[in-house]
Amino acid sequence: MARVAIVGSGFIGRAWAISYARAGHDVVLWDTVDDAPGKAIDYIAGVLADLSTHGLLHGSTPEQVRSRLFTAETLEEALDGVDHVQENTPEDVEVKRKVFQRLDAAAPGNAVLASSSSAILPSKFTEELNGRARCLVVHPINPPYLVPAAEVVPAPWTDQAVVDRTREFLVCAGHAPIVMNKELDGFVMNRMQGALLEEAFRLVADGYASIEDVDIGIREGLALRWSFMGPFETIDLNAPGGVRDYVARYQGIYERIFPSQRRRVDWSGEVMEQIEGERRKNLPAGKLVERQVWRDRRLMALAAHKRRADDDLGK
Amino acid sequence: MARVAIVGSGFIGRAWAISYARAGHDVVLWDTVDDAPGKAIDYIAGVLADLSTHGLLHGSTPEQVRSRLFTAETLEEALDGVDHVQENTPEDVEVKRKVFQRLDAAAPGNAVLASSSSAILPSKFTEELNGRARCLVVHPINPPYLVPAAEVVPAPWTDQAVVDRTREFLVCAGHAPIVMNKELDGFVMNRMQGALLEEAFRLVADGYASIEDVDIGIREGLALRWSFMGPFETIDLNAPGGVRDYVARYQGIYERIFPSQRRRVDWSGEVMEQIEGERRKNLPAGKLVERQVWRDRRLMALAAHKRRADDDLGK
Repeated sequence: MARVAIVGSGFIGRAWAISYARAGHDVVLWDTVDDAPGKAIDYIAGVLADLSTHGLLHGSTPEQVRSRLFTAETLEEALDGVDHVQENTPEDVEVKRKVFQRLDAAAPGNAVLASSSSAILPSKFTEELNGRARCLVVHPINPPYLVPAAEVVPAPWTDQAVVDRTREFLVCAGHAPIVMNKELDGFVMNRMQGALLEEAFRLVADGYASIEDVDIGIREGLALRWSFMGPFETIDLNAPGGVRDYVARYQGIYERIFPSQRRRVDWSGEVMEQIEGERRKNLPAGKLVERQVWRDRRLMALAAHKRRADDDLGK
Repeated sequence: MARVAIVGSGFIGRAWAISYARAGHDVVLWDTVDDAPGKAIDYIAGVLADLSTHGLLHGSTPEQVRSRLFTAETLEEALDGVDHVQENTPEDVEVKRKVFQRLDAAAPGNAVLASSSSAILPSKFTEELNGRARCLVVHPINPPYLVPAAEVVPAPWTDQAVVDRTREFLVCAGHAPIVMNKELDGFVMNRMQGALLEEAFRLVADGYASIEDVDIGIREGLALRWSFMGPFETIDLNAPGGVRDYVARYQGIYERIFPSQRRRVDWSGEVMEQIEGERRKNLPAGKLVERQVWRDRRLMALAAHKRRADDDLGK
C-alpha cells in the first residue's frame, strides 16, 4: 500500500481522502488553515458510516478506513515518504504555481504530483519545475468516492511512466480513469457537459421547453442508457449493423440540427430569471443543502445498484 | 380505460403496445404486413415475463396485460372506437402524409392521432388534414416500456386541449412527457444527444481521447447524477448559491471552450475507422443482438432500482 498526501483539505481534498483510504492507503491531510485537516476527518467519519451501510467500503470497516487517516502540521511533514500527492488548492494559476514549487522541492523524488484542477491545464503551472515530468492533473467528479471517473491529463512534458503509474493507482482504488493523450481546455467531461448544457440553455432561452422538460429528457430518457453504457456504446447498439450503420442512418438528422447549435446564449442573461425562478419554485434556496445530502444518498444507492447489476447481469 | 390503436407493429409499435396495455388500456395492433401484429404479440409475451420478474407491470400479471392485446385485419377495424392512435410507420414524410390521411378519415372524431416520428416535424404531414388540430408527435426513446421520457410535439395548429389530454394520457401510463411549446428539428432529446455526440466525435477525431475514455466519462461520471436529476438540477446543486451562483463561477470555462465546439467532424469519415475498430474489438458484430438483450435487462434492473430509490429516499 502507498502513502498519499492530501494538500488542501476542503471539499475536494476530504473526498479524495475517503477514496484513497478506502483503497487501503495511508492518507495524510494538510491545509494552510490549521484546523481544516481535523475538521475534514470529523466530516469523513460521518460519511464512512453511510458508505458502510451501502457496502461501499471495499470490505473494510469504517474504523479501519478511519485508522488510515492522519493530519500533518506542516507541508513537509505531510510529504514525508509519500508516493502520491493530491493537490486541492483554489483554482488560481498563481496559487497552483507556488504550491507546485513547494511540492516539487519537498516531496520524495519518486512521488507523483497530481492536481485536482478542473479548469487549469497542467502545463500552466508546472513548466518551470525541475520535476515537471512527474506532474499531471487528476481531476475528479465530486465526490470521487461515489463517482468512479477521474481524468488523467498530462502536460507535454509529463513522463509516460508517470501517466501509466497514475492510471494503475486509480484503477486499484476502484476508479475509472480517463487518460487523455494530451491536454485540452475543459478536459473530456466538462467539454461534454458544456456541449449538452449549451443546448439545454438554448432550448429554454428560445422558448421551446421548460427546464423541467430538459431535466426529464435526460433523467427519464437519455441518461438511463448512458449511466451504464456511455454514448458510443449506446449508438453502437441502436442500429442493426452497429455504430457505422447508426451513423449512416442518422448522421443526417444531427448534421441538419448542427448549424443552429453554433450560437451560444448568455447563461446569466434573461434566461437566468426563468431558470432560477423555476428551480427555486421546485426547491427553495433554504433546502439546497438538504437536497445535496439527498443527492449523495441517491448516488450511493446507485453505486450499490450498479455493483449488483455488474455481478448479476454483467458489465 | 381507453382504447388504443397501434398503426405499424414493428420495433416501436410493439414496444408502445406493451406500455399502453400495461397501463390498463385495450390495444389493437395493425400493420400493412398481415402477420406482423401476431408476431408482435408473440414477442411481447416474452417481454412481459421479464417485466413481471422486475416488478414492472404496474401490479398486473403478464396474462392480464396479454389479454388486453388484440389484432385487426384492416385499418378501419383497428380504428373502430379508439381514443388514441399511435402511428409507427417508416420515417418518410410521404408515407406519414398518406397514413395520416387514412387515419384522419377513419378514426373517431375525438381520437388523438399521434406519430412516433423521431425526425419529421408534425407540421410536415398534417397541414392539409381536416382534423389537423388533433394531430401531434409523441416520440419515445426505445423501448418506451423501460424509458419513461416521451416527447409531445405540437404542430402550429394542434389544439392545446389535445396536447393537454395527451400529456395526461402519458402520465397515467407511467410516462414522463416532455411537452414542447412549439416544434423544432430534433425535438429536445435528439438535440441534446447530438450536442454531446458532436463533442464526443471531435474528441476522438482530434486524438485527445479514445472512445472507451469518452464512454467512461459519461457512464462512470456525468450520467450518474444525470440519471436521477437531469443537467439543470445537477448544476443547481453544484454551487453553494444554486444555479445562478454556478453560472457566475463556471460560465467562463464553458465560454472559453465554446469556439472550439462550433466545428463539426464528419462522423462517417476517417474517425469511423477508429471508432468501429475499437467497438468491434470490444464487441464483435456477431454479439450485437446478445448485447442488446443485456442492455434491456440492465434497463429493467435500473428502472426497478429507481422505483425503489424514489420510495426509500425520495424523488
